[in-house]
Amino acid sequence: MLVLITYDVNTETAAGRKRLRKVAKQCVNYGQRVQNSVFECILDAAQCFQVKHILEQIIDPKQDSLRFYYLGNNYKTKVEHIGAKPTYEAEGVLMV
Amino acid sequence: MLVLITYDVNTETAAGRKRLRKVAKQCVNYGQRVQNSVFECILDAAQCFQVKHILEQIIDPKQDSLRFYYLGNNYKTKVEHIGAKPTYEAEGVLMV
Repeated sequence: MLVLITYDVNTETAAGRKRLRKVAKQCVNYGQRVQNSVFECILDAAQCFQVKHILEQIIDPKQDSLRFYYLGNNYKTKVEHIGAKPTYEAEGVLMV
Repeated sequence: MLVLITYDVNTETAAGRKRLRKVAKQCVNYGQRVQNSVFECILDAAQCFQVKHILEQIIDPKQDSLRFYYLGNNYKTKVEHIGAKPTYEAEGVLMV
């Protein structure tokens, strides 16, 4: 299924900037970056549980937030992109 | 239906920062801000067409991007939030 992960990390402090880098680094392991703080990931239930658990350990829940959107398996018609940057298909094929 | 709008605007220039403010201001008219560059909007087809058209006029398609995710009407189980900030139900009721 397609899982969209979006995050807000408070980068006012060095510790915050470090959290942001860590969150992004983990998300890269699970999916495609489509915008600065937006990743599209094709995950099964176990992988989804795993990435949520990893990200929860990184963020400061008082300052940062994560959102997960579950778009199911028939997601291709549910996503639209306008403007800059190539969009990447979540399964790895570059769409131009 | 729930439409998720995410955007990346290049804010390296004053013109870019102005575009960012304009995009955010328009999104506020159509939905709830759930993260810095993420809005959840309950829209019918006409409103969706309208907001897309408005945002397309604001952004610089060479530098900025918009993404739209269509989550349908049964979206409540498709969204999960972890961490800071209250989440707002897209129809306006604060979830605590």
